[in-house]
Amino acid sequence: MTYRVVLLPGDGIGPDVTAAAVKVLERAITGQGIEIKIESHLLGGCAIDETGTPFPEKTQEAVQTADAVILGAVGGPKWDVGPGHLRPEAGLLALRRLLGVYANIRPVKAFPELIDASPLRKEIAQAVDIVIVRELTGGAYFGKRERGRDEAGARFAYDTMYYSEEEIRRVLQTAFETARLRRKKLTSVDKANVLDSSRLWREIVQEMSAQYPDVTVEHLLVDACAMHLVTHPQVFDVLVTENLFGDILSDESAVLTGSIGMLPSASLGQGIGLYEPIHGSAPDIAGLGIANPLGAILSVALLLRYSLHLEAAALRVEQAVASAVRDGARTKDLARQGENVLTTEQMTERVLSY
Amino acid sequence: MTYRVVLLPGDGIGPDVTAAAVKVLERAITGQGIEIKIESHLLGGCAIDETGTPFPEKTQEAVQTADAVILGAVGGPKWDVGPGHLRPEAGLLALRRLLGVYANIRPVKAFPELIDASPLRKEIAQAVDIVIVRELTGGAYFGKRERGRDEAGARFAYDTMYYSEEEIRRVLQTAFETARLRRKKLTSVDKANVLDSSRLWREIVQEMSAQYPDVTVEHLLVDACAMHLVTHPQVFDVLVTENLFGDILSDESAVLTGSIGMLPSASLGQGIGLYEPIHGSAPDIAGLGIANPLGAILSVALLLRYSLHLEAAALRVEQAVASAVRDGARTKDLARQGENVLTTEQMTERVLSY
Ligand SMILES: CC(C)[C@H](C(=O)O)[C@@H](O)C(=O)O
Ligand SMILES: CC(C)[C@H](C(=O)O)[C@@H](O)C(=O)O
Repeated sequence: MTYRVVLLPGDGIGPDVTAAAVKVLERAITGQGIEIKIESHLLGGCAIDETGTPFPEKTQEAVQTADAVILGAVGGPKWDVGPGHLRPEAGLLALRRLLGVYANIRPVKAFPELIDASPLRKEIAQAVDIVIVRELTGGAYFGKRERGRDEAGARFAYDTMYYSEEEIRRVLQTAFETARLRRKKLTSVDKANVLDSSRLWREIVQEMSAQYPDVTVEHLLVDACAMHLVTHPQVFDVLVTENLFGDILSDESAVLTGSIGMLPSASLGQGIGLYEPIHGSAPDIAGLGIANPLGAILSVALLLRYSLHLEAAALRVEQAVASAVRDGARTKDLARQGENVLTTEQMTERVLSY
Repeated sequence: MTYRVVLLPGDGIGPDVTAAAVKVLERAITGQGIEIKIESHLLGGCAIDETGTPFPEKTQEAVQTADAVILGAVGGPKWDVGPGHLRPEAGLLALRRLLGVYANIRPVKAFPELIDASPLRKEIAQAVDIVIVRELTGGAYFGKRERGRDEAGARFAYDTMYYSEEEIRRVLQTAFETARLRRKKLTSVDKANVLDSSRLWREIVQEMSAQYPDVTVEHLLVDACAMHLVTHPQVFDVLVTENLFGDILSDESAVLTGSIGMLPSASLGQGIGLYEPIHGSAPDIAGLGIANPLGAILSVALLLRYSLHLEAAALRVEQAVASAVRDGARTKDLARQGENVLTTEQMTERVLSY
């Protein structure tokens, strides 16, 4: 069996961490009776620099025939000046849309040894163990938008949070099934006291919950959720929400554990999985070889799990990362004063040594 | 000089805390050479029960000729079942819109004696001192929305985040002027890497900043902001953002200090100010006489400041609250195990005793 994996290193520290991810992926499949062909392509700012567009046709073709895609990160101040459709982010959004990856899955779990870096009090931080399922190809990100001038010449602009029944249903299915494999609690987050799109969302959650009698469903307003994530994150098991709310809440959740550099994500949908660490391009430390590769490496674990269905190999990678952290391996972002600091490569070697 | 203040006790603990607020307001203006006429009207669930609509005409007439409005809270599970326009929240939104209160101002500052109740580590929590300026009468709350079915009969729904140049400009003016009176730093929060309404917002911030050369302006994406509020809230002075982002971020900020029952708000715009504590209706403790009145009392301080221009009286109320807390006065929500617990009335008397 041969799988094709497309690598999109992207911008900033993207190339550093995806190089680490590839090493771990290659090691992880050794002896599994499968082969992996890895091809690198351009996405984001680097693609703009080389081809004039953030998501070149060659990349589009490559990802559509891949089994899985590993993405580093896109963006940086250098490209923040162009018009909207010529920014790195536009490439990322088009990639998500083209792959149809409507469910963005972000596990957020505290590493006991890193709890001191959390902004939360220890008792609260150590209980964090949430999987966020964010709708990724609908809502205000992809609805009709416009900028214009009214008759008097005054500017206006709008964006549309649009959802169809089918868009809501498919991501909820992923969420219900994720909850079923965990503590069986699903929190659906919306703004149903104001928004029509949220009222439809809530209605469909209610309808679908009949098919998942083993899953306890709770509805929470997005403003209340933003509070509860900080005050009692331990009540959350699986949290599902629409695209824009998910963008905000998943980033809020990401800092609760104090180690955002460790967090992976998987975007799933119609077949081809997209895997990326959530930490972003961090242009200030790009190319210095000091970025934390663990978010990218844990994204490889998700790739092994969801795209290659190699659960045992996925767990081995996750355990290797946990062991490295337990045994004191720290990149700059994780190290406390006086602690020994590893480079990206050294940290990768440590993970490979388990 | 006689001022007309309309009181909208609303639902849940609303009547408890506004009764306290009125007592403090009456005391605060004693000897100031002004008179206040207070009239009570229905809004929210109680209005639905009595009149069939959350914002009855009589209330509409009363608030439009008032100098200021004090609101308790609206809503509760009892009214969560009706159609959208017959819910308590619809009354609140219509009230905001009718009064034209486009700028919602929420100061969030830690009380040193209450820091232990914060979910954040002490060093982080004690530095919180932010004023959030939330746009309150535009965006997805008031844009065109619809629920329908496509040709195949499948449901869809959408909401529109619409902003005109003028709507953005006037709330930014409030924000710039607020920053000018504080540490002179303004953080404007948007999602300009995706949304057209955010790109217009950012453009207007940039244009207006030329008129406020003494104010340092920073742009921050809403997802990054949701992180920074938890990891380093001390970098924020004045934060300004659109309606929906403001709903989420102001609630997130509200829990940082650990005492949401203490937080007031002022909604300002075209003349008539609307003052309300941010804690909500808390139906579970309604009528028990144990609600924390300090958020409502501090909202009275804002009323004295912004609607009556009695800065000295406003400061006296704020100092009385600070003194009561410093001297150990605690309602149930603030008390730690073993601490003496005051009722709503007792807490109000304590504040009045300074
Ligand atoms: C870069 C940006 C467009 C993107 C988003 O908003 O989806 C990012 O914040 C993310 O969460 O992956
Ligand atoms: C009750 C609700 C409509 C309201 C809002 O979303 O504006 C509330 O959450 C608030 O922040 O005042």
